Amino acid sequence: MPDFGLITDTHLISMIRPIMPQVLLTLFQQPGNAAATLRERVCSTLRSAIHSGALSAGQRLPSSRLLAADLQVSRVTTEAAYAQLETEGYPQRRVGQGTFVAIRINKPAAVRKVAGQLRLSQRGKTILQTSGCRDPQQPLPFAAGSPDLRAFPLKLWKQLTAQQLRVNGEKLLRYGDPQGYLPLREAIAGYVGQTRGVNCDAQQVIVLTSSQQALQLIATLLLDQGDRVWMEEPGYLGARNAFTSAGAKLTPVNIDEAGLRPDSSLPVPRLVYLTPAHHYPTGVALSLERRLALLEMARREQSWIIEDDYDSEFHYDGQPMPAMQSQDRHGNVLYLGTFSKTLFPSLRLAYLIVPPELVSAFSTARTLYDGHSAQLMQAVTAEFIQQGHFAAHIRYMRQLYRSRRDWLLTQVEQRLPAFATAQPANGGLQLAVWLPHGQEANLTRQAQQLGVITPGLSALFMTPQARRDGWLLGFSALTPGEISAAVERLSKIVRD
Amino acid sequence: MPDFGLITDTHLISMIRPIMPQVLLTLFQQPGNAAATLRERVCSTLRSAIHSGALSAGQRLPSSRLLAADLQVSRVTTEAAYAQLETEGYPQRRVGQGTFVAIRINKPAAVRKVAGQLRLSQRGKTILQTSGCRDPQQPLPFAAGSPDLRAFPLKLWKQLTAQQLRVNGEKLLRYGDPQGYLPLREAIAGYVGQTRGVNCDAQQVIVLTSSQQALQLIATLLLDQGDRVWMEEPGYLGARNAFTSAGAKLTPVNIDEAGLRPDSSLPVPRLVYLTPAHHYPTGVALSLERRLALLEMARREQSWIIEDDYDSEFHYDGQPMPAMQSQDRHGNVLYLGTFSKTLFPSLRLAYLIVPPELVSAFSTARTLYDGHSAQLMQAVTAEFIQQGHFAAHIRYMRQLYRSRRDWLLTQVEQRLPAFATAQPANGGLQLAVWLPHGQEANLTRQAQQLGVITPGLSALFMTPQARRDGWLLGFSALTPGEISAAVERLSKIVRD
Repeated sequence: MPDFGLITDTHLISMIRPIMPQVLLTLFQQPGNAAATLRERVCSTLRSAIHSGALSAGQRLPSSRLLAADLQVSRVTTEAAYAQLETEGYPQRRVGQGTFVAIRINKPAAVRKVAGQLRLSQRGKTILQTSGCRDPQQPLPFAAGSPDLRAFPLKLWKQLTAQQLRVNGEKLLRYGDPQGYLPLREAIAGYVGQTRGVNCDAQQVIVLTSSQQALQLIATLLLDQGDRVWMEEPGYLGARNAFTSAGAKLTPVNIDEAGLRPDSSLPVPRLVYLTPAHHYPTGVALSLERRLALLEMARREQSWIIEDDYDSEFHYDGQPMPAMQSQDRHGNVLYLGTFSKTLFPSLRLAYLIVPPELVSAFSTARTLYDGHSAQLMQAVTAEFIQQGHFAAHIRYMRQLYRSRRDWLLTQVEQRLPAFATAQPANGGLQLAVWLPHGQEANLTRQAQQLGVITPGLSALFMTPQARRDGWLLGFSALTPGEISAAVERLSKIVRD
Repeated sequence: MPDFGLITDTHLISMIRPIMPQVLLTLFQQPGNAAATLRERVCSTLRSAIHSGALSAGQRLPSSRLLAADLQVSRVTTEAAYAQLETEGYPQRRVGQGTFVAIRINKPAAVRKVAGQLRLSQRGKTILQTSGCRDPQQPLPFAAGSPDLRAFPLKLWKQLTAQQLRVNGEKLLRYGDPQGYLPLREAIAGYVGQTRGVNCDAQQVIVLTSSQQALQLIATLLLDQGDRVWMEEPGYLGARNAFTSAGAKLTPVNIDEAGLRPDSSLPVPRLVYLTPAHHYPTGVALSLERRLALLEMARREQSWIIEDDYDSEFHYDGQPMPAMQSQDRHGNVLYLGTFSKTLFPSLRLAYLIVPPELVSAFSTARTLYDGHSAQLMQAVTAEFIQQGHFAAHIRYMRQLYRSRRDWLLTQVEQRLPAFATAQPANGGLQLAVWLPHGQEANLTRQAQQLGVITPGLSALFMTPQARRDGWLLGFSALTPGEISAAVERLSKIVRD
């Protein structure tokens, strides 16, 4: 039964002091931390009233008795709240006069700052201008680069997670090694040594959250303002953005059927960014001859080579060449791999393998950037590799993706209008399709209207005159049925 | 039964060509990816032999028949391997003559580069000089700042993890929102609004991996080379390192019993870094008057205020003051909180709450730094908060930590030598203990010999003349018994 007495009281009071009690009551009754004590809720009500301007400096507060009636709490509670607030300096008690608001709060500005007045640093403005590099959160056709997560052995992963929590429990909750969980570093060193010929031990492996973090750390630690970086043209936007935001000067270097084609007229680089296994986005492999020439240049000029080996696991025709790192005898190559494509993107684990003398710099920088990677995820991944599930999973996914690549290629060649030319590749998770000059925007718009996402290729070129129109169709996350259905829609597109 | 025939064959061959087959056999038998096909293993053996220099340019390779005998595999396998290697450019077949190593590999340098020749960028050198900021991986007495993970509700956490994987499964494996998982951002906005008076909605919350990442992003986005930053003196090393590595000029500002004490002679700052709830490391709270004065200065000078509210949850005597952010009417405060202390460090989740106009810059920068935070951990944390477990856990831990603070304080006052002066605080996870001038190094060494870690206070001062000797004793992760035992050991220390 409602307590009419108290309600009447409140009504009476609100007639005498017309607005305030209602404001306080509303603030007091706001849904929130139901766990807070009544005293805490009274304190927070009065603070809010003062900060919002409902109570202003010099204004007299209701007596603890009146406030208790307003808020339907005991007087002991309101007195405790007033005592608490006084220690915080909000109200001041004047003997014989009552309690008054002691602090002055500026009224909220009528209009907030607009974006034009953003007080960003120069570097902040550069970063904002890059627009960043956002990965597709939905694996819709043909968003690029996501593994097929429906085929991920989630049950097994859950079991390993439970097992790790059982075996290592509390240890995995603690702060971790900035360089990475040792069993994972050992598993990674074993894996890349075996499958990619990478020449390293666990001491050279730095576990990071993503390739992007590796590129950011590399840009920070190895590049000064104005340093020259060679980029593949077209090339990976995430790398370009990291180097640009570090103030580097980028030199686009053309790609032919043997990969990056350096030209003796190009300025000597401080750093070369490469995707040698499958060039991003075309899938071309860098030839052995070019690899050796680049390594020799790096030795001669003391340049760094970043080998981004992001999807070498997915090579479909014959064996991939071993990593360039395996041919480096002078400590110029930094090797980069990720679990985002081989396991799942939200795992947030990647690895950078650096020459021994760079380990300390990268570990230290990591402590200033974000500390370390989550230990539980590292422990589960290490177990997944050591128990052989990783090799088995990759073998299975490689077959799956190969069949999807073949299927998409057939579909594109048979059913897409003649003006779309596929560029098949030996590996990778997406297919480059070239379009007539100047048509990408129009055709992409048509595709979008038909409900198909077709990531553009032209934005991956740095030089406007080199720009070629095209699409980069991600097929890995799609079943043959989904591929056919999406190509069917695209087949309705007409050339402008 | 062993196949004597083949073994004999191998022995014979090894007598004719004394070294190479043994080298190849050793390489071939190296433990590794047992899952690799025989052909892959033969390829990798020959590649390794070439890269290691065991086989050099122009050298004739064994015939496929001989190699098959050496490695005890079928001739079909060695022929397939040779064909594969030829496509990679390693060997060259000359009709009628045999197969020869076609590439020249530089011999490994006798001595690797030494650290003195490190080719780091200027920023890289600055970062390396800071020595980074490493958190204690072992919660030994009195390593600072770790929550008591033995009291963490691991079983409940496991259940929520399993539940999230069951309910959201594959969705949580995908790429996530760079700004953070929406349900977690909503839970955070609700929590900080209720308990800290923070004035925000989920759209202003950026989920990050750690406070350190927040400080790094802030330094990058808001500070230009030479920009002035006010730092508490003494103050938090992680913040100092982030701002220093961004090229900022730091002004130490003294602390008294009301917190940071600005002086009109100080240069106007572009940014002020504050720990208002409990100053790190002394635990002093910033007074309301000073808060309002700093907010007014920020309004007038268009400065940023970073409110690092890292352990406000652990306030033991009365209520903590609401966050400064709740008093900011001009969008100058960036509010920073972490789950490292309230849940567990290896969760890798923290939050930054920014004025609406900064959201886009921070989200974009996040995509260039490390993409996003792991979705599963965010989903579990959101559930943990929404189901009320978080509030309950904090209430429980607050009581636990309060009793430990009281216990440590009693122990220190009763049993530590008279020259050690504790500075009790209303909150926090560690106790500052001041030592006689010039004695910190010596006393810390003695403590270490007694098996007790005593993090020093003097390194937290920027100005040599302001430096005070002392220890920062972390008590939160220790039981009363562990605290007594460690203080007992420290009691044996003698002043130099």
